[in-house]
Amino acid sequence: MKWDHVVKNGLLVDGEKTYPGNIYIQNEKIAAITQGDLPGEAREVTDARGCHVFPGFIDIHVHSREGVLGTSPKEDFYHASMAAAIGGLTTIFDMPNINPPISNAENLKNQVKNFTPKAFVDFALWGICLGKLNMDQLEQLSSAGAIAFKFFWGYAIDTKTFQLVYNYHPSMEHLIPPLDEGEIYQVFQKVAQTGKVLAIHAENFALIQALTQEVAKSGAKDYEAFLKGRPNLAEETTIQTGISFAKEAGTKLHILHVTTKEGVGLIREARAKGYPITGETCPHYLYLCDEDFPRLGSLMKVYPPIRRREDQEMLWQGLNEGTLPVLSSDHAPHTEEEKKLDLWQAPAGITGVETMVPLMLHGVNQGKLTVNQLAKLLSEHPARIFGLYPEKGSLQVGTDADLTLVDLKLETRIKKEKLHSKTKVTPYEGMKLQGAPVQTIVRGKTVAKDGEIVGIPGGKFIHS
Amino acid sequence: MKWDHVVKNGLLVDGEKTYPGNIYIQNEKIAAITQGDLPGEAREVTDARGCHVFPGFIDIHVHSREGVLGTSPKEDFYHASMAAAIGGLTTIFDMPNINPPISNAENLKNQVKNFTPKAFVDFALWGICLGKLNMDQLEQLSSAGAIAFKFFWGYAIDTKTFQLVYNYHPSMEHLIPPLDEGEIYQVFQKVAQTGKVLAIHAENFALIQALTQEVAKSGAKDYEAFLKGRPNLAEETTIQTGISFAKEAGTKLHILHVTTKEGVGLIREARAKGYPITGETCPHYLYLCDEDFPRLGSLMKVYPPIRRREDQEMLWQGLNEGTLPVLSSDHAPHTEEEKKLDLWQAPAGITGVETMVPLMLHGVNQGKLTVNQLAKLLSEHPARIFGLYPEKGSLQVGTDADLTLVDLKLETRIKKEKLHSKTKVTPYEGMKLQGAPVQTIVRGKTVAKDGEIVGIPGGKFIHS
Amino acid sequence: MKWDHVVKNGLLVDGEKTYPGNIYIQNEKIAAITQGDLPGEAREVTDARGCHVFPGFIDIHVHSREGVLGTSPKEDFYHASMAAAIGGLTTIFDMPNINPPISNAENLKNQVKNFTPKAFVDFALWGICLGKLNMDQLEQLSSAGAIAFKFFWGYAIDTKTFQLVYNYHPSMEHLIPPLDEGEIYQVFQKVAQTGKVLAIHAENFALIQALTQEVAKSGAKDYEAFLKGRPNLAEETTIQTGISFAKEAGTKLHILHVTTKEGVGLIREARAKGYPITGETCPHYLYLCDEDFPRLGSLMKVYPPIRRREDQEMLWQGLNEGTLPVLSSDHAPHTEEEKKLDLWQAPAGITGVETMVPLMLHGVNQGKLTVNQLAKLLSEHPARIFGLYPEKGSLQVGTDADLTLVDLKLETRIKKEKLHSKTKVTPYEGMKLQGAPVQTIVRGKTVAKDGEIVGIPGGKFIHS
Amino acid sequence: MKWDHVVKNGLLVDGEKTYPGNIYIQNEKIAAITQGDLPGEAREVTDARGCHVFPGFIDIHVHSREGVLGTSPKEDFYHASMAAAIGGLTTIFDMPNINPPISNAENLKNQVKNFTPKAFVDFALWGICLGKLNMDQLEQLSSAGAIAFKFFWGYAIDTKTFQLVYNYHPSMEHLIPPLDEGEIYQVFQKVAQTGKVLAIHAENFALIQALTQEVAKSGAKDYEAFLKGRPNLAEETTIQTGISFAKEAGTKLHILHVTTKEGVGLIREARAKGYPITGETCPHYLYLCDEDFPRLGSLMKVYPPIRRREDQEMLWQGLNEGTLPVLSSDHAPHTEEEKKLDLWQAPAGITGVETMVPLMLHGVNQGKLTVNQLAKLLSEHPARIFGLYPEKGSLQVGTDADLTLVDLKLETRIKKEKLHSKTKVTPYEGMKLQGAPVQTIVRGKTVAKDGEIVGIPGGKFIHS
Ligand SMILES: [Zn+2]
Ligand SMILES: [Zn+2]
Ligand SMILES: [Zn+2]
Ligand SMILES: [Zn+2]
Ligand SMILES: [Zn+2]
Ligand SMILES: [Zn+2]
Ligand SMILES: [Zn+2]
Ligand SMILES: [Zn+2]
Repeated sequence: MKWDHVVKNGLLVDGEKTYPGNIYIQNEKIAAITQGDLPGEAREVTDARGCHVFPGFIDIHVHSREGVLGTSPKEDFYHASMAAAIGGLTTIFDMPNINPPISNAENLKNQVKNFTPKAFVDFALWGICLGKLNMDQLEQLSSAGAIAFKFFWGYAIDTKTFQLVYNYHPSMEHLIPPLDEGEIYQVFQKVAQTGKVLAIHAENFALIQALTQEVAKSGAKDYEAFLKGRPNLAEETTIQTGISFAKEAGTKLHILHVTTKEGVGLIREARAKGYPITGETCPHYLYLCDEDFPRLGSLMKVYPPIRRREDQEMLWQGLNEGTLPVLSSDHAPHTEEEKKLDLWQAPAGITGVETMVPLMLHGVNQGKLTVNQLAKLLSEHPARIFGLYPEKGSLQVGTDADLTLVDLKLETRIKKEKLHSKTKVTPYEGMKLQGAPVQTIVRGKTVAKDGEIVGIPGGKFIHS
Repeated sequence: MKWDHVVKNGLLVDGEKTYPGNIYIQNEKIAAITQGDLPGEAREVTDARGCHVFPGFIDIHVHSREGVLGTSPKEDFYHASMAAAIGGLTTIFDMPNINPPISNAENLKNQVKNFTPKAFVDFALWGICLGKLNMDQLEQLSSAGAIAFKFFWGYAIDTKTFQLVYNYHPSMEHLIPPLDEGEIYQVFQKVAQTGKVLAIHAENFALIQALTQEVAKSGAKDYEAFLKGRPNLAEETTIQTGISFAKEAGTKLHILHVTTKEGVGLIREARAKGYPITGETCPHYLYLCDEDFPRLGSLMKVYPPIRRREDQEMLWQGLNEGTLPVLSSDHAPHTEEEKKLDLWQAPAGITGVETMVPLMLHGVNQGKLTVNQLAKLLSEHPARIFGLYPEKGSLQVGTDADLTLVDLKLETRIKKEKLHSKTKVTPYEGMKLQGAPVQTIVRGKTVAKDGEIVGIPGGKFIHS
Repeated sequence: MKWDHVVKNGLLVDGEKTYPGNIYIQNEKIAAITQGDLPGEAREVTDARGCHVFPGFIDIHVHSREGVLGTSPKEDFYHASMAAAIGGLTTIFDMPNINPPISNAENLKNQVKNFTPKAFVDFALWGICLGKLNMDQLEQLSSAGAIAFKFFWGYAIDTKTFQLVYNYHPSMEHLIPPLDEGEIYQVFQKVAQTGKVLAIHAENFALIQALTQEVAKSGAKDYEAFLKGRPNLAEETTIQTGISFAKEAGTKLHILHVTTKEGVGLIREARAKGYPITGETCPHYLYLCDEDFPRLGSLMKVYPPIRRREDQEMLWQGLNEGTLPVLSSDHAPHTEEEKKLDLWQAPAGITGVETMVPLMLHGVNQGKLTVNQLAKLLSEHPARIFGLYPEKGSLQVGTDADLTLVDLKLETRIKKEKLHSKTKVTPYEGMKLQGAPVQTIVRGKTVAKDGEIVGIPGGKFIHS
Repeated sequence: MKWDHVVKNGLLVDGEKTYPGNIYIQNEKIAAITQGDLPGEAREVTDARGCHVFPGFIDIHVHSREGVLGTSPKEDFYHASMAAAIGGLTTIFDMPNINPPISNAENLKNQVKNFTPKAFVDFALWGICLGKLNMDQLEQLSSAGAIAFKFFWGYAIDTKTFQLVYNYHPSMEHLIPPLDEGEIYQVFQKVAQTGKVLAIHAENFALIQALTQEVAKSGAKDYEAFLKGRPNLAEETTIQTGISFAKEAGTKLHILHVTTKEGVGLIREARAKGYPITGETCPHYLYLCDEDFPRLGSLMKVYPPIRRREDQEMLWQGLNEGTLPVLSSDHAPHTEEEKKLDLWQAPAGITGVETMVPLMLHGVNQGKLTVNQLAKLLSEHPARIFGLYPEKGSLQVGTDADLTLVDLKLETRIKKEKLHSKTKVTPYEGMKLQGAPVQTIVRGKTVAKDGEIVGIPGGKFIHS
């Protein structure tokens, strides 16, 4: 008997239970789960004593910012996937708003070629919805393997480059303004036909623009003014229109980065009525709130914005009760220079792919959620919702041997210079955490261990 | 003792109870309600034996189509108010989308001067909200006596004439496109400051435009296609955005002409949460449904459209349970020629100010609602919601002697040539009804009796 | 023109509105309501300037303790009805657990004869349900005029005297133990057949007995121990069984003296489902709570007991939202000596018929409820629920001229020596109130004025 | 490497997922779960190709009718456990109402000694609650290993033998009548202190007695009359009182054999509020209804009774939505002679331990529930609720190797002569089913195969 890899003496965790066991791996798959030892040589043996062994964690919301036509000084896929591996993730879904956008099958195929040699972990690719500009491409894009579709509600589009443009103004050239709700509804209908999930960035652009202008006129510049310009109402109205559209068109709708108590309430109601609505939130909405602005400044600027303590509390409750079945990082790095600009000039986005798992393990130690809930939020649910379960997201013989080993007792401190993204910026600088991923195993192969990469990229493109 | 008018032996009806009584009127007010006879001469005595005496009925939604700059061949205020009086109404609210629109205090004052000599019944005037074009006029318009404000969600505006334009296309000249939701929210905020009600025509224009184009491409031309182009979803999404805006801005929101079961559901939920939301529906949504199209054709074309039987049933339930506290006619005449055009060419709108009360009395006889509910829907609630109660809308000593006398047993048949609007068109032609208004008394003076006008115009402009 | 009585210049109040008016009375009925003056002489003129004029208040829950076979040193009907008149009531319902009980038509008729010459106000009589002992008498008792039926859930019955016995023990002679739920359900079915209301004292006797014994064993003697022996749970379980029985048998069920937040919750739910369930609470549950025990001692002992602040708050909410449509006094006097006994020896019951209206008017001045709500709770609703409306409970021409005149500004202080019951005991001694009844008019005749009786008894037996 | 038993090529099923795998067993535990083959000899190899392998099924509600003081001609533990093994069960919980009842630790210990040599499957023992008669024994009974406690609401008790007596009448000797609700509440409190579950037979005895007498008087004898005497209301009122008691006392409450739509509704509401309430139903309530009486007669007599189709449908829904997390057999055999008596004379109870699993597998094939739901209802949930999880109720390395192998395609026909209970009576005679258990493995050892026992009794007493 020859085993490729044996992970011994760990405490196995899935969405339902926690139990001691050994995992024997052959040909990238879990070949056996045992309590005692099996005979046979093993190419690699990992002693997981003292560790929790999770089904490999999945981050469905990563902006590596790399397209075939160019990477960014902010981030690229090589660094993002490296940071992911070290951060305890075994699969990431890359967002499609890059250059060129993942708006058709060809762009997707090129991106797969581009990413594969740089991937430390497995990856999936989001397709983008640009309304009429690529409505007739969605079916092929789906067949080519887009994991799901994203629609950037409220963004204008450059008709030459297909790049998204925020803060649209009619005077801008080559731009089509944000799609109207008629065209948006047609997107919902079209995606419903593919059977894939449609995810939305849910902010009411027109409302934000009007209120931000009001705020600007008033001269107020503080975080309170910022929130007044992007109120909870902007998220509420877009989510509820999205839910109505999804209900009517039969679309599986995923609400990205939910930030408001109103948003949680709407998703809760929709799910109770049996509509196929899911939602996610991100660590920065769980660990930060408006009270942190004096300390952090633009480092915590993100869209939708980090809100008030009452919203934060409802987001935790939403995770616990199952209203928000997914956690994601919305990893969206900017350079340190950019994030040093003031609140109104700095770009929105937070580096997060590497810090998500440690932050959430800390939450487990604080009693905010259980290891089983974490296995659901970061493994089982993402895999189920996007059609990868049980190949991904489970601890089950016969499926991909993706494992994240975690030491719940390990104390670490977040330091930006230890991060592996291209730009090393974080709002959590200096934060002391208990609980950290200590080994990341992708299809049987250890890719990261104790905070360092082990070996070379071997990630694969995956699709449902 | 001298009485101006005594109404004897009637069955008095208000929102709560029904009881025999006499009403003695002096100086336009109810001076006494008695069971027996009082001494003293009376200038006028009405024997109401066999009749129900209601607090004068109010129609808050009338398009007389007359502005200071011109009347229309479709209708004018003289005819509309005459039809109202004969139809059992003592007060009507005229809609502001005329030429010039009631967009500022001056236009309102001119309209009052214009209307007063032509008014057979008392009248109030709606103000119009045109977004930034008259945002800073709303306060003065309110002070000048606008009863409430109307916003035509989804309509473009001609910047030269301030006329509303439906079916906006970017190629049209001098037009500003339908307001975006940022500007709409500012309208909600502004109206909230006046303390007055904001009423909306709730249809998602962009959605309707897109879906109607799809339908057009498909070549389908029947009523089913028409409804596919203006689905329930269009009403649902606008109402729910409106409710969210009202909740946030503190606006008293009135949903005009609710037509869908989804709309009733949203208003029910909002009211249960304590938000200040009211709604109305109209007789044509209660008595007609898609099944009537083969018989009626374009005569029943109206926006929002008449829908399916299940919607109709929910509207009746909404009236009964109090979710829809108001009935209105949405009187909006077109010429007979226009209404002979096909479904896609004919203008939307139904003549209704004169037939509303008879139709609803017929409903009472059918057991669809009680006389007390009717007193609430057509008298008490409109008066309360728009700040006129108890002066209007009650049977109470000391208040305006507005009375509608009704014979619940009287059988009539609707005939267009008997109508008093400028254009005599009705979808109810030939319908046999039981129950009719037989006498309309405005501030003590009989203005209509047995289907004919009595005397000359004496209506007054009223405001809260 | 001759008027028997004119009440001028008052502010008329009913469940919906408040308006100035004069009331003209002839032959015990309201003959006219006017704003101005009518000609004609009046035998009596009351100037109600500065007063609110309510439809005469009704107290449906009075224990005068007088039976044909004997009165009590605690109270009798003469004194109870005198106190009622001075306290602003025009009608009282007397409870049937007296000697002999109102268990059959004959006893009822004798009681009517007994009470009529002593009645300062109109009165109705409850019938009693004794299970099989008088099951076949209920129909006749109903026809003879019992206003409704009361069932004392959890009380034993003396088979010789038909007297109720609390604290049943098997060793007691001539007693049948509290009815089991089978027999109780048959009572519900039987009363349903009469179409009358069934009212219950809702306490789970077996539970109370067991828990009180436990408390006794523990040696605790304070009010906390008392409440532990009669927990909210005892009310909750009986109310919910009662509601289930009523729903199934089709019985109109009235829950007497609701005291718990759980009780309010159950009635709210049942009413929302459309079951014919009503409930009442009493001033002592609204104005007192466990925190008052150190000050008041046994003066506040009553069954069910006065509970905690959170219950009290929910009772106010229940009144305001309409879950509890009725207020009553549960007037049940004991002698001063008895009420001086300790918490465990003193009898349960509070004198209240005279203080209810002043206490509630005080509540109006405190903003706890409106005059219109009070008109519903003490006039309109009792009359409607028990089939007396609009003859009682309304201000309407043609109905009984029962009026309670109230001065909302008048300041008074409760003093036991000023009370008119046979025993002058009150837990409100020394309490300063704003708002008091100043004149009580029963069928046109003033029976009490400024705290004193005017004239001789003239009350009548009333029934639906 | 030496394996005790290898179960190969099966389709493993748990509450969440279904996947191919092999199970390797050592020392009665699951030592490994693998996809491929492991080296090493195996004492026993089972080829499960084509089979579903479930965590061993558990029946928490079996009346073997055997006590230390005597077995019954109806059934004994040897036969009951044999039938269980053949019927696909690996653990059964025996009910405590035998002679002597399991009312104290000593009786429990004697019963363990009595049962162990006769047990083909593992077994647990219910303790009984007799009110004051054994209130002070419950703590020790719990420590001695009672799996949970059962209270027979509405049954009298023979004070000499502690036997339960139904149809109590005061004239009976040596009997204490059914406990009153005070004593019952004390049972709830006492059991709450043990931390164990309290299960109730929920029928309102007094109500049933009264209504059955009424029915008897009417002379009606059909099944409709039978149901009129034991209406849904009897279950509703007892369940709701039980839930109130459990909420207040903090008792984990399990509702045995739920039969009504009202019962499902109450449990649904209670669970939604977070109370620790569980419920079960049984195959006869799912597969039979009143319409089957003409065909089956007394064979389907059981308490609570089999009810109407609308109840049946709600029970299926309750299972599917999780309101009823457990399935049980309520195995309660009577002799064929007894079950031939008429509806009013025959004893209540149905033989069911051997037919439950086949019936439910048939339901899986009919699409009524999924294999994963079945794994929850018969394995995971019973184990979790009674504290045995994951040792029982899971497929997890390191836990008891209890397995039920099932052939979902196998067609069988129920024949009473093939049953293994002492008395061979069934209401399902001749019923053709698809899906059957084909092998039962208790802690690694095959105890039944293809409808026959394999080997000798080896079951063990288990407790949490
Ligand atoms: Zn986003
Ligand atoms: Zn993003
Ligand atoms: Zn409109
Ligand atoms: Zn209109
Ligand atoms: Zn009482
Ligand atoms: Zn009482
Ligand atoms: Zn049972
Ligand atoms: Zn049983």
